Amino acid sequence: MGDEHVTDAVVVGAGLAGSLVSVYLARRGFRVTVLERRADPRTPGAREAGRSINLGMSQRGVRALREVGLFDRIAPGTVPMRGRVVHAPDGSLSFHPYGTEEDQVLHSVFRHDLNVVLVDEAERLGVEFHWGHRVVAVDRERPAVTAEGPRGVVEHEARLVIGADGAFSAVRAQLGRGTRMTLHQEFLEWGYKELLIPVGDDGRPRTPLHALHVWPGERGLIVAHPNVDGSLTATVFLPFEGRDGFAGLDTHAGVADFFARAFPDVPALVPDVVEQFLAHRPASLVTIRTAPWHVPTGDGRGTVLLGDAAHAVYPFFGQGMNAAFEDCSVLDRCLGAHPDDLPGALAAFEQARRPHTDVLAELSKQNFVELRDKLRSPLFVARKKADLVLHRAFPRSWVPLYTLITHTTVPYGEALARARRQDRLLGGVTAALAGAALAGLARRSRTRRARRQVS
Amino acid sequence: MGDEHVTDAVVVGAGLAGSLVSVYLARRGFRVTVLERRADPRTPGAREAGRSINLGMSQRGVRALREVGLFDRIAPGTVPMRGRVVHAPDGSLSFHPYGTEEDQVLHSVFRHDLNVVLVDEAERLGVEFHWGHRVVAVDRERPAVTAEGPRGVVEHEARLVIGADGAFSAVRAQLGRGTRMTLHQEFLEWGYKELLIPVGDDGRPRTPLHALHVWPGERGLIVAHPNVDGSLTATVFLPFEGRDGFAGLDTHAGVADFFARAFPDVPALVPDVVEQFLAHRPASLVTIRTAPWHVPTGDGRGTVLLGDAAHAVYPFFGQGMNAAFEDCSVLDRCLGAHPDDLPGALAAFEQARRPHTDVLAELSKQNFVELRDKLRSPLFVARKKADLVLHRAFPRSWVPLYTLITHTTVPYGEALARARRQDRLLGGVTAALAGAALAGLARRSRTRRARRQVS
Repeated sequence: MGDEHVTDAVVVGAGLAGSLVSVYLARRGFRVTVLERRADPRTPGAREAGRSINLGMSQRGVRALREVGLFDRIAPGTVPMRGRVVHAPDGSLSFHPYGTEEDQVLHSVFRHDLNVVLVDEAERLGVEFHWGHRVVAVDRERPAVTAEGPRGVVEHEARLVIGADGAFSAVRAQLGRGTRMTLHQEFLEWGYKELLIPVGDDGRPRTPLHALHVWPGERGLIVAHPNVDGSLTATVFLPFEGRDGFAGLDTHAGVADFFARAFPDVPALVPDVVEQFLAHRPASLVTIRTAPWHVPTGDGRGTVLLGDAAHAVYPFFGQGMNAAFEDCSVLDRCLGAHPDDLPGALAAFEQARRPHTDVLAELSKQNFVELRDKLRSPLFVARKKADLVLHRAFPRSWVPLYTLITHTTVPYGEALARARRQDRLLGGVTAALAGAALAGLARRSRTRRARRQVS
Repeated sequence: MGDEHVTDAVVVGAGLAGSLVSVYLARRGFRVTVLERRADPRTPGAREAGRSINLGMSQRGVRALREVGLFDRIAPGTVPMRGRVVHAPDGSLSFHPYGTEEDQVLHSVFRHDLNVVLVDEAERLGVEFHWGHRVVAVDRERPAVTAEGPRGVVEHEARLVIGADGAFSAVRAQLGRGTRMTLHQEFLEWGYKELLIPVGDDGRPRTPLHALHVWPGERGLIVAHPNVDGSLTATVFLPFEGRDGFAGLDTHAGVADFFARAFPDVPALVPDVVEQFLAHRPASLVTIRTAPWHVPTGDGRGTVLLGDAAHAVYPFFGQGMNAAFEDCSVLDRCLGAHPDDLPGALAAFEQARRPHTDVLAELSKQNFVELRDKLRSPLFVARKKADLVLHRAFPRSWVPLYTLITHTTVPYGEALARARRQDRLLGGVTAALAGAALAGLARRSRTRRARRQVS
């Protein structure tokens, strides 16, 4: 064992969740040390290296950033998305606004730029970042984190240890050793690759910029977010296996043929689509549910997980970062409500949060099926439309689930319960409509048969 | 890296599953090396050290042992259990036979003795055991297992690597590194401790020997298996937390009071119940579901998991060892059916087996609830009785789920599907009976009210 270091809080992970929570903690007066495996994101060249390079920030993320006074600093680097543009196989586009209100927008943000703003702000508040430090052990009884960095192994002891180190959290793995930790880890049989839709040769965006673009499909699914420079970043979701999966799409001709068949308007938007597609290996998508999130010590200290380390979800509801930011906000409020009782604050945080992120995990799975299969079902589209019509007619009392999740901060579980109540009513409405339509068909067919008998 | 060793098959784990599968492989002509973390079970003193020291062997386990010609060698050391003896809180006993047939019995067997017979037989067939060897790495691409033993680190390369190393399998953890392995790990909020019910002072068993004993209860649950020497081994299942949980039961007075309240007939059976109870820490119960179980290589080799490493279940259906033995039998058949295609055999094994062990995991969870809560519900007991009455009347066409799981080798999933069909019919029967009973009550109550009005 090498050096030792004692502080108020050690945060493992300087990604979005780790850097934001360190801002919250510093504002609350904690001396904070952050340990991060990767290099400083402000290192030249780091901006181009990452994956999942832009994200949709919705109301939950906005609220957290406003709480720490950073939203206005971040907003100029984002592109507002006012709705979805759906690309049909025939190349036609349809626009579906997110809502009637001016603030019912999503903000497309470059993950890296957001991360840098958060790290800068944390440093301004006195947070100490240790880059290139890999966690090798967590002692949950003290608590303390041992990390190996460029200058050897250091043990960091703290009142509060936070694991914000992502879906494959080393802190979570260490906390679980020899305990009864629940862990559900499931990978989607689909993965993803990213494609850049560059600015057009005329310097203008190649497709409407102020929207989230969706190419729904059974064989594959594409989602694209706009960037401030007029380009868009598309994420192509495909099965890993099979002929039209990543495994089978390994030749120039095969990839070109696939896009021509499945997404015929994409090659015009991404001129080098084949080269971009073949340049990288597909990334995987994981759902993680775990419990407990927190481990108190006997003497008023503790360890807690947040963000993807506690609840990684599929990206199909666009809530991964938003949920992580909401975690930071809720943890901060719990620390405020239990100023002299850290274990109490951590317990309150887990109790307040876990039921809702469990719901989010399910919704994120369902939304994959919705994007892939249901957007093409007439009954489903009719229900979605009825949902929006009712929302316009009764903007306060009738709010679709997507709107509740994205444009409000109603806890996920309550949003789902409310949407289910609405859905039961709407199910009745659409069932009645469908029944009427079928009855109409039956009448017509009887009439036709009757005519045939007459003739 | 130290020495290297090449063989046909490397089995990790010399427990029940690992030693049985090595017998099957040796009979098929494989040269087999077994790596086991613990010491040789034949070492003096090893017999007394283990946990979960006896088990109920049912039809699936019996069949596998018969296949390798070992059942007759094991049978003399087992005690047949012809039914359940249920202990009521008032100390009264009721006997519920397992079936009408002579062979519808369970065999209570000492885990350690069974293990020794399997290891002896494997050695007789040429299997090489390396005791005290801990797996430090698995190379799934070759495949090869690196283990650290008393004489240093050795790498064992083989055509076939089998992970039979239990619920917290090192092979599984190594296989999953950097892959999309599904893992569901859930611990029951209840744990267990074992108690010995010694032979009586008169040299005779203190309670009927040829049965499985059950003390159902909401506050706790006890199950006891008989031993050949007339003693029984009881397993006390309690919540970990709370006043009547393991955490709260930490004093002599508290434990004595608990048994007097919850299981008043136990202190007469276990004179030193308090001392035994306080002597050990409680053990935990885990359900593990994972996928895939097998990883082929490009050149006709592969790695596969079986037994608890692939599917740990709660013990409440008594199927853990039986399912593991059935795995060995099914894997052996798959190897026979694909003699020149090891990856094909492993794929066939996983496909044949995993859906059924997934069902077993669910049934084992449900049976905990049944033992704890439902054995005291009159409607539930009525349904169970109706189930058995119908089985007696139609022994071939109506077979209760418990009988299908325990006394047949019908695959678990098919057993459940069949039981569900029966259950729907039976639900109708009991609903009709309950309806009639309620109608009768209503009639009587109306009559009484009418009388009151008259008087």
